[in-house]
Amino acid sequence: MEQPTDRFTTEVRVRYAETDQMGVLHHSRMFVLLELARTEMLRRHGLTYRQMEEGGWFLVISKASCTWKAPARYDDVLVIETRITRVTHTRIEHAYRVLRKFDGVLVAEAETTLACVDRGGNVQRIPDDLAKLLSSR
Amino acid sequence: MEQPTDRFTTEVRVRYAETDQMGVLHHSRMFVLLELARTEMLRRHGLTYRQMEEGGWFLVISKASCTWKAPARYDDVLVIETRITRVTHTRIEHAYRVLRKFDGVLVAEAETTLACVDRGGNVQRIPDDLAKLLSSR
Amino acid sequence: MEQPTDRFTTEVRVRYAETDQMGVLHHSRMFVLLELARTEMLRRHGLTYRQMEEGGWFLVISKASCTWKAPARYDDVLVIETRITRVTHTRIEHAYRVLRKFDGVLVAEAETTLACVDRGGNVQRIPDDLAKLLSSR
Amino acid sequence: MEQPTDRFTTEVRVRYAETDQMGVLHHSRMFVLLELARTEMLRRHGLTYRQMEEGGWFLVISKASCTWKAPARYDDVLVIETRITRVTHTRIEHAYRVLRKFDGVLVAEAETTLACVDRGGNVQRIPDDLAKLLSSR
Repeated sequence: MEQPTDRFTTEVRVRYAETDQMGVLHHSRMFVLLELARTEMLRRHGLTYRQMEEGGWFLVISKASCTWKAPARYDDVLVIETRITRVTHTRIEHAYRVLRKFDGVLVAEAETTLACVDRGGNVQRIPDDLAKLLSSR
Repeated sequence: MEQPTDRFTTEVRVRYAETDQMGVLHHSRMFVLLELARTEMLRRHGLTYRQMEEGGWFLVISKASCTWKAPARYDDVLVIETRITRVTHTRIEHAYRVLRKFDGVLVAEAETTLACVDRGGNVQRIPDDLAKLLSSR
Repeated sequence: MEQPTDRFTTEVRVRYAETDQMGVLHHSRMFVLLELARTEMLRRHGLTYRQMEEGGWFLVISKASCTWKAPARYDDVLVIETRITRVTHTRIEHAYRVLRKFDGVLVAEAETTLACVDRGGNVQRIPDDLAKLLSSR
Repeated sequence: MEQPTDRFTTEVRVRYAETDQMGVLHHSRMFVLLELARTEMLRRHGLTYRQMEEGGWFLVISKASCTWKAPARYDDVLVIETRITRVTHTRIEHAYRVLRKFDGVLVAEAETTLACVDRGGNVQRIPDDLAKLLSSR
């Protein structure tokens, strides 16, 4: 399939409840922010993930990896650059770069793979118009 | 209805991810621990909340309050005393005392009210055998 | 002390990770959103909570209560109205109303009391200029 | 350095607040459970992570990856097998297998790399006795 090169940027501020006693964004919360970034990217494409689920298409995470480079602290605004790196019949792969806005320092680099499943959790083909939408940029 | 006086005690250790940068259990996480305590209490009664949901009975929170007295820190074992203070046809009220195990200091006192609803979110009568079970002690 | 009547409104979208298997915002997460609302209110006053902590003033929660009226779902935008209802030498009280933006339905009403403490957790007087700032509107 | 082959097993029950509206453990929460598993492993070695932090040694995550194989649901007991796969002067690598207890199905496989830093966040050598402790099995 044609592979996309589109890049989407979103910003999110680190919440107090997302820090831990080391004074930084707890690493598990990074995956919440990445999810936020890719669903906002979808919204920009004119589709919400909520509509997808209502239509019977669910995206479940099958793989995720992240490398941390620098800490993100409370109240830091993070800039998350998201790219779709690969779309297959049943999977969507994203790559992310997370930067601190105030100094541009790279906080993390990450990748995720989503699988498209139905209500029962069985893998299903990504709807053609979504695949097209995601691949065409 | 007859009102119960039963008391149930459970212990839970504060996780690293539950702390915030002040070095204490983030207050929002206390409500997660209270939920844990009351579902463990239910399990002791021979019923799991999972079974309740599978049977079509959902307990949703309609009211919660908490007063904090002392901080709970990472790795502290908390002792949560839970009592059912009132059972009506559609509601269950719990009261909680949370103590630090190592020194017995009172960390928090809390109360919650749960409403019984169906899959559609409409209030429904608590099943008789559950009401009896909860009220009889 | 003079009591404030100021009202601040902020909006926040419910994240996927904030829902639970009942398909609604988990009740514990409401307290994270209230914290967000009151710190954004502070920012509007020209002060960030981050600066307060850096200056040695910490606001810890001493009391919180919430009544839920209607569910908030994934991707719902919530409108949080925040008022400071009382400022004493060591405490700040807030009241909140949380509404669903798309239909204006009241989701929850809540109140919190914060205590001002120092790095060691000892109650300390709220700095005069902050108290003035908070009380003068 | 000598490389360890030790395996540690711990069990943890999925909390309601850890599910999302798909009815499964939200993927971000898996990393919280892995952290739990490795700190419990440390405790078994006679050391707590709390003591480490008090002594000035902090372990920060520098890399994490996870592959999900099957969903974990509310109230499922998960069996987490943890192995230390590599210890260098400044890093500790763990590998994990997460299984559902009731049917033995593999839920996820994961790997993490921790870096040892001081209070200021600067990489520091892992204390010799800890390195020895971790490597000797």
